[in-house]
Amino acid sequence: MPHTQTYATPTRELQFILHEWLDAATGLQELPSHAGIRRNDIDELISALGHFAEDEVAPLNAIGDTEGCSFHDGQVTTPAGFREAYASWCAQGFPRLTAAREDGGRALPNVMTNLVIELVGSANHSWLMYASISRGAYECIRANGNAQQRALYLPRLASGAWTGSMCMSETLAGTDVGLLQTSAAPQADGSYRLTGLKRMATVSEHDFGENIVHLVLARIDGAPPGSRGISLFIVPKFLPDANGDAGERNSAHCEGLEDKMGIRGTPTCWLRFDGATGFLLGEANKGLQAMFVMMNIARLATGMQGVNQSERGYQVAADHARHRLQGRSARGSAPGHEADPLIVHADVRRMLFTQKAWLEAGRAFGYWLALQVDRAQAHPDADARHDADELVALLTPVFKAFSSDNGYACTTLAQQIMGGAGYLGERGVDQFIRDVRVAQIYEGANGIQGQDLLGRKVLADGGDRLARFQRHVAASMAHIEPDSSLRPFADSVLQLGERIGAQVPRIAARATANPDQVGASGQSFLRLLGLQVYGWLWTEMARVAQPQADFSSFHAAKLATARFYFAYLFPEAEHHLRVIDIDADVLMTADETLF
Amino acid sequence: MPHTQTYATPTRELQFILHEWLDAATGLQELPSHAGIRRNDIDELISALGHFAEDEVAPLNAIGDTEGCSFHDGQVTTPAGFREAYASWCAQGFPRLTAAREDGGRALPNVMTNLVIELVGSANHSWLMYASISRGAYECIRANGNAQQRALYLPRLASGAWTGSMCMSETLAGTDVGLLQTSAAPQADGSYRLTGLKRMATVSEHDFGENIVHLVLARIDGAPPGSRGISLFIVPKFLPDANGDAGERNSAHCEGLEDKMGIRGTPTCWLRFDGATGFLLGEANKGLQAMFVMMNIARLATGMQGVNQSERGYQVAADHARHRLQGRSARGSAPGHEADPLIVHADVRRMLFTQKAWLEAGRAFGYWLALQVDRAQAHPDADARHDADELVALLTPVFKAFSSDNGYACTTLAQQIMGGAGYLGERGVDQFIRDVRVAQIYEGANGIQGQDLLGRKVLADGGDRLARFQRHVAASMAHIEPDSSLRPFADSVLQLGERIGAQVPRIAARATANPDQVGASGQSFLRLLGLQVYGWLWTEMARVAQPQADFSSFHAAKLATARFYFAYLFPEAEHHLRVIDIDADVLMTADETLF
Repeated sequence: MPHTQTYATPTRELQFILHEWLDAATGLQELPSHAGIRRNDIDELISALGHFAEDEVAPLNAIGDTEGCSFHDGQVTTPAGFREAYASWCAQGFPRLTAAREDGGRALPNVMTNLVIELVGSANHSWLMYASISRGAYECIRANGNAQQRALYLPRLASGAWTGSMCMSETLAGTDVGLLQTSAAPQADGSYRLTGLKRMATVSEHDFGENIVHLVLARIDGAPPGSRGISLFIVPKFLPDANGDAGERNSAHCEGLEDKMGIRGTPTCWLRFDGATGFLLGEANKGLQAMFVMMNIARLATGMQGVNQSERGYQVAADHARHRLQGRSARGSAPGHEADPLIVHADVRRMLFTQKAWLEAGRAFGYWLALQVDRAQAHPDADARHDADELVALLTPVFKAFSSDNGYACTTLAQQIMGGAGYLGERGVDQFIRDVRVAQIYEGANGIQGQDLLGRKVLADGGDRLARFQRHVAASMAHIEPDSSLRPFADSVLQLGERIGAQVPRIAARATANPDQVGASGQSFLRLLGLQVYGWLWTEMARVAQPQADFSSFHAAKLATARFYFAYLFPEAEHHLRVIDIDADVLMTADETLF
Repeated sequence: MPHTQTYATPTRELQFILHEWLDAATGLQELPSHAGIRRNDIDELISALGHFAEDEVAPLNAIGDTEGCSFHDGQVTTPAGFREAYASWCAQGFPRLTAAREDGGRALPNVMTNLVIELVGSANHSWLMYASISRGAYECIRANGNAQQRALYLPRLASGAWTGSMCMSETLAGTDVGLLQTSAAPQADGSYRLTGLKRMATVSEHDFGENIVHLVLARIDGAPPGSRGISLFIVPKFLPDANGDAGERNSAHCEGLEDKMGIRGTPTCWLRFDGATGFLLGEANKGLQAMFVMMNIARLATGMQGVNQSERGYQVAADHARHRLQGRSARGSAPGHEADPLIVHADVRRMLFTQKAWLEAGRAFGYWLALQVDRAQAHPDADARHDADELVALLTPVFKAFSSDNGYACTTLAQQIMGGAGYLGERGVDQFIRDVRVAQIYEGANGIQGQDLLGRKVLADGGDRLARFQRHVAASMAHIEPDSSLRPFADSVLQLGERIGAQVPRIAARATANPDQVGASGQSFLRLLGLQVYGWLWTEMARVAQPQADFSSFHAAKLATARFYFAYLFPEAEHHLRVIDIDADVLMTADETLF
């Protein structure tokens, strides 16, 4: 029997982030395409998505984990209730939130559609994957498709009638997609015939909707080897007929499903293309670039997954700690009490505060980044667009890796607080760990994010993006008065920024002599920048909370958590400031036979 | 289908630890009861256990995870092959290794029987649990039983004909066993009738052997509340008849099994005692003390579990990193190579080295501690016994918590190196994570170990035990010559010892005013002492390896890993040296409604 799970929309937290701190509605007024959005629109979206999340998909989360998807005779059956929830999702128009107006969409800004990722993903990440991949396919076709392709596919994806699927990996081509072997043979009519076996293809076969639009990476016959010879194709499960309806079955067939540690309600497919008809999407041999449209969205969503699962774990752990009577306070129990709630113990509070500190700063980071994406896309001023774009480029790998690593730590702490009951999976805590674990692996493993950050985002431009971010932080911290009790927080953040900045020329010098230095220092660099970002966010949140902290326990909690963050978590930087200064030789000179 | 798993006994590593470094055979000569043991005896035991581990239980590890145990009509069926492996285990006389000679045992020292825990536990931790609990029951009856109880139960447990079971937890009594409600009503014949429902009772019902000997915590009618009123009882599944054979079925019945995140081949039972006949073991109301006999053994075994699962993960990850061709070296690939093995990447090496560094120091720690237990039990000199006993008392919570926390990190890194395939559980890596996770929770959750260490083991004796350990370290580091290239390692270890020592009076002063300080600082104190212990061990291992490192890649790897440890892992101390100095108010002043 699946354990009972419940999810409560963190409405108050979202109001704090989106209204009190970020003031997103005011920020959006600067962007002409979103200038009509009011606070009330944001609140209504929180409410609508919250109901769907709590009532329609949260109850399916444990079922998805227990039942998984099943495969029989080429057909995939999704867990009980998933299909009906998808029908409801479409009937309520949710797939249209992110789509363009000309495709029947509402074209909401990212700072709002991030609510879809948070609320639906928190409630049931496995279920969200179906919707997420469809959105990704939509964005990819919108960015790369010709007029005919856009007219055919986009409205159908926007309504949810058709769903999307991504087919990238093969047995010999995972992280290194350039090694793929699926081939595409040009046909006289301009189409291609694709042949090959894809694996780890997410939601590429299921029982939702009328058609599945596979986006498939393959090599056109005669194209160069490696990543320079990869093209992207649209391969519909059913070939559209003259009316644009799902017609003849294409020869792309699921051959089985993978068993996985988590996200077990999502089908991960083996998909065989047996001369399947495909249509080139974008330019030949530019398939990777075409697909990169989706990579930033996917990495931001993956960072949110770290937040989401942490929220799930925290809800359970905090409730357990407040109500489970076990053991006695170090100060002695109240008379007549046989036992105290776990929350009287300092170490339990350390674990709860750790979760709050990572989780709430992660949420702030996610919505702030989403707003920067909106500014980069829609601000009328080119400098403002460029500024936002640079910040997003720098901080996306940080959010993806830092938040997912922290999410694994947080869900593990939630289980730890539950003790033996947690190991038995009560209230879903073991599922949260197993589900969030993939966020450290997919969309570019976290080690790769560290190299992307340090190599491509920091060293490649001589530290300009990093300096830009530090100017933002400095401007923000300048709002903390010299006599404010928050000034030590602000000073810590600024000082860490200087210490990180001072490392950049040192690493650059080493990396010139030894290209392995980027890999050797990348992980610590990413942790350092993440710690600084979260320090900046906690100082910001404390600044907003402080005036109300005397009479609002919600705001008092923000101040207490900021204080905890700087006392317990922020000093992790001292570890990484030492590691980052280590020469790569420590790693690289050992012969590989020593391992 | 379960994924294929293989396990290779790390014979060379064991020889290095047991012969080259610890020189256990020579050390045992000081202990009269073990003075006949030679190196060859140790090697033969490694070989015999290694064969059993590799050939008989390792192949069942994935099956245990996939099948789990099943419950039907009061009967528990263990996973395919488990029962036959147990019969073979008994036929080969393995249960006798740890038993006393008068019970038909071989009474091997702990430094050798630790090989059982490592090799069998690495191969199949779920299977080891059946043997471990039986050993625990044996030790508990041997320490607490009267002559009749010892004569009846011990030979049957020593042969493996009967197995043991521990029944402690109830729904309302987990960590806080003093809350238990199971009652024991005295009978005219001196026996008791036990009534209550136990849960999380490990291997308390299965299909091995002829009888199951439950050791059950319960409260005699009229006994005081809390932990002062708890007694320990022997409750056999089948009541022994006049010949000592398994006779009438006792009314202790399994009502079902728990589903668990890992160790799924081990049955975790609900067990109902419905007026079951039990026999008092040891003194009335002293049940917790009677059971504590097993706690140190169990904590050392739990520390080893961290080592064992790390070894499993490392074997898979190192092989994968050396053979999986994916991506290119930062220095450029060799001509004609389409891709390089993963091990060319600095960050992959960081992850491999991290596993090696935690794992190999953990193994050294485990065998060193086991030898100290032997000295504490069997040394002819009372001062030497006391010295060893104090070291064991101080360092047991460190080993339990530090090694299990590191084991979770190591298995997670092994999966990370495997990437997507790891998330699919290929070669068992996800099972290793799920199995090792429980080691952080059971036998006293790791937060409790931190409080035990700091409160009972360090502050309670004014830092005497800690100072004793530091003298051992100083004596050991004095063997590193001033001009040795290892001297910086030794100096780092000594310096960290001084910094930890300097914290003790500060924490003591704070704890006097605020008892919550022990809980607030315990986790960081434990990490600090663990980092120092591992630093000491890595310096020791490097000292032994150095003379041969120029011509032996095995020894060169030890030096390279020591260097990595001090560069990458040891500086974690800088984080915790700051946290440990934080006042508990940061955690405790927040009202519990803020969570």
